[in-house]
Amino acid sequence: MIKDSDFIKNSEVPGPTKEEIRCILLCKSEVSNGDVVVDIGCGTGGLTVEFAKKAKKVYAIDLNPVATQTTQENVSKHQVEDKVEVILADGLETLDELDDFDVLIIGGSSGKLPQIIKKGYKKLKKNGKILVTSILLETATEAIYTFKELSLKPEVVNIMISKGTPSSRGTIMFSNNPITIVSTKKF
Amino acid sequence: MIKDSDFIKNSEVPGPTKEEIRCILLCKSEVSNGDVVVDIGCGTGGLTVEFAKKAKKVYAIDLNPVATQTTQENVSKHQVEDKVEVILADGLETLDELDDFDVLIIGGSSGKLPQIIKKGYKKLKKNGKILVTSILLETATEAIYTFKELSLKPEVVNIMISKGTPSSRGTIMFSNNPITIVSTKKF
Amino acid sequence: MIKDSDFIKNSEVPGPTKEEIRCILLCKSEVSNGDVVVDIGCGTGGLTVEFAKKAKKVYAIDLNPVATQTTQENVSKHQVEDKVEVILADGLETLDELDDFDVLIIGGSSGKLPQIIKKGYKKLKKNGKILVTSILLETATEAIYTFKELSLKPEVVNIMISKGTPSSRGTIMFSNNPITIVSTKKF
Amino acid sequence: MIKDSDFIKNSEVPGPTKEEIRCILLCKSEVSNGDVVVDIGCGTGGLTVEFAKKAKKVYAIDLNPVATQTTQENVSKHQVEDKVEVILADGLETLDELDDFDVLIIGGSSGKLPQIIKKGYKKLKKNGKILVTSILLETATEAIYTFKELSLKPEVVNIMISKGTPSSRGTIMFSNNPITIVSTKKF
Repeated sequence: MIKDSDFIKNSEVPGPTKEEIRCILLCKSEVSNGDVVVDIGCGTGGLTVEFAKKAKKVYAIDLNPVATQTTQENVSKHQVEDKVEVILADGLETLDELDDFDVLIIGGSSGKLPQIIKKGYKKLKKNGKILVTSILLETATEAIYTFKELSLKPEVVNIMISKGTPSSRGTIMFSNNPITIVSTKKF
Repeated sequence: MIKDSDFIKNSEVPGPTKEEIRCILLCKSEVSNGDVVVDIGCGTGGLTVEFAKKAKKVYAIDLNPVATQTTQENVSKHQVEDKVEVILADGLETLDELDDFDVLIIGGSSGKLPQIIKKGYKKLKKNGKILVTSILLETATEAIYTFKELSLKPEVVNIMISKGTPSSRGTIMFSNNPITIVSTKKF
Repeated sequence: MIKDSDFIKNSEVPGPTKEEIRCILLCKSEVSNGDVVVDIGCGTGGLTVEFAKKAKKVYAIDLNPVATQTTQENVSKHQVEDKVEVILADGLETLDELDDFDVLIIGGSSGKLPQIIKKGYKKLKKNGKILVTSILLETATEAIYTFKELSLKPEVVNIMISKGTPSSRGTIMFSNNPITIVSTKKF
Repeated sequence: MIKDSDFIKNSEVPGPTKEEIRCILLCKSEVSNGDVVVDIGCGTGGLTVEFAKKAKKVYAIDLNPVATQTTQENVSKHQVEDKVEVILADGLETLDELDDFDVLIIGGSSGKLPQIIKKGYKKLKKNGKILVTSILLETATEAIYTFKELSLKPEVVNIMISKGTPSSRGTIMFSNNPITIVSTKKF
C-alpha cells in the first residue's frame, strides 16, 4: 500500500483515506483487474489511485475543483493516468453518463446520498459492490436507511486505528478519526 | 466536570487529561473529602484541580517547572489553592517526604515507574488506590509487571473517546488518543 | 463505583450500563444531592442505583416488567429504596405525570425518542441535563436531529472501552461494545 | 476476503483472525505471488489460507495439534493444499529448517517472541516483512523492544473494529477485541 505521506495533499481537501482504511475497502470491494470502479467524492484521490492499481478503469468524480486537481496530481505521481478519468462534476448526474460498473465507492455525496445509492445500485453490475465511507454519524445511518429501502442488508463496520512510532521514551499512540463503512453487494 | 477548554494550557506541557478520563479516574479512585491525594507528573494540573475539589489535600508534583507553573495557574483559576501544594521535584524522592496518603495518581514517572509504584504502594493507606495513566504502550505494561511483582492484580482499562459537534453537514467524530489506566487497591 | 458484577442481572434485560459509562454519565449530568432524576428505559437499573446514591430522587421507568423487576432488585440490593420509585409504564406518557426534574437519562425509548426528548426538555428545570445513551447508530443520529430541531447543540461522545485482566500469559484486552452519549443542558 | 464464518473453528484454538485484520496484514505484508510466507502460531489458519491465495508457499506452524489440524481443515476447505505445508512443531526451532522467506507472521510465540523475531529477521530476505499480531499488551511491547534491539523502527498499529447488522430496531454495534500489529521491513 501507498503510505499516507506519499500522497500530495491540499489543505482544502479531506484525505487521503488512511492506509488501513484503503486496505479494508480494497478487500471488501473484491476488485479485480477487469473491473470498472466509480469513486464519487474522490477528494485527495487516495482511493482512486489504489483502486486504479487493481482495476481496469476508475472514474474519479468530485464537485470541488481543488479535489479533482489534487486527485489528478496523485494519479500522475503514482502513474495510473492511463486507467483513471478524473471528472469535475456532480456525482449523481455523472452516474447517468457512465456505463455499468463493478464497484461504486461513495466518500462524498453533497447531501444526495440516498439518490446516489439508488441510482448507483441500479447501474451496478451483478455481484458488484457499493461502499459508503462516512466520517459523519449521519451519513452512516442515512446509508443504512437507504439500503434498507432497497431491501438490502448492508454490512456496517466502524474502524478506529491508533498508530505509534517508537521514540526514546516509548510508543505514544495517536488516534485517527473513526470511519464507518456501510457496504453491500448486488445480487 | 471542568471542560477541557477551561484549563490554562502551555504548549510545552501535555494535558489537560481529557474530561471523560478525569471522570473515570475520579470514579475509580473512590476519592472522598477526607482524602489525601498525590499526583505525580501533574502536567497541566487537570487531575490536580479535579481531585482537589473532592479531596482534603492534593500534592501535585512535577519535575518540569513549566508544568508546575501551569498547574499552579489552573489551581488558582479554579480556586482550589487552599487544598493544593504544587511541588517542583522528582516524584520518587518526594514520596519519602510525604505522610501516608489515600490516592496516588501517576501520570508521569521520568523512567522510574517501578520504583514509584513500589514506594508509593508502601506509603498508601489501607484501601487506598494507585492509578497509573499511560499514553505510552510501554508504561502500561511496565505498570502491570510491577503490580504483579507486588502480587497485585491490577485492573487494566483502555479508553478511546471520539467527540463530535453537530455542524450543518452533520456530526464529524474526532478521536482523542487512547489512554490506558492501570490501577489497584491496597488491601 | 459499583462493579458491573455487583448488579443482579437478567438475561432478558440489557445492562447494566458498564462502570466507566456510568462514571461518565454521572459526571456529565452534574447531579447533586437535591436533584430529581428520571431514568427512562432503566433496564437492569445500573444507572438508577448510581444516580440514587447522588440525587434526592430517581424515577426509574421501563415498559418491560422484567426490567422494572430487575431494577427493583438492584435498588434493594444497593439499599437505595427510599430514593427510587420504579414505574412499569411507557416513558413518554409517564413524563406527563412527573413534576419538573433536573436530569433526564434516556436509555430506551421504544421508538419514541424524538417525542421523549421534546416533552422531557420542556419539563426539565433550567440548567438541567438530558443524556441519551445509545448502542444503536440510529438512536444517536435521531437524538442529534431532535436536539437540532429544538435549536440545541448537543455534545456527542463515543466511548470504546477495552478491559484486561493480567493472566500468566499476559494481559488480553476484551472490548465492550461502543456507546454514544448525546447530551445537552437546558438554558 | 473470506468471511469469518467461512472458516472451520475449534473452540480450543483462537481465531480466525478477523476479516478486516487479515486485510490489513495482507496489505502491510505486500505479499506477492512469488513469495514464501511463514505463519508461526497459525491457530485456526485464517491467515495461512489468505496468504496462500496470494503467495507461492506458506509454512503454517503451531505447537498445538488441534491448531495444526484446524488449519489443515481450513486449508482443504479453501483449496490451497498445494501451497501450504502445515507443521506441528515449535516455531523457533522450525525456523532453522526453513530456507529464507519473504514474509514472517507471528501470531503466537509460546513465550519466545524475542528469539523468534531475531532468528526470523536473520532469515528474512531483503525487503521482506515481519508482522507480529498481538492481543496481549505485553506481546506488543515485547515486539517493540526486540525490534529496537535490532535497531529497527517498527510500525505500531492498534485496530478496533465494531460491526453492526441492521435489525428492525436499528444497528447495534458489537466490538471485536483490539489487535496491535507491530511490523517492520528488512533493509
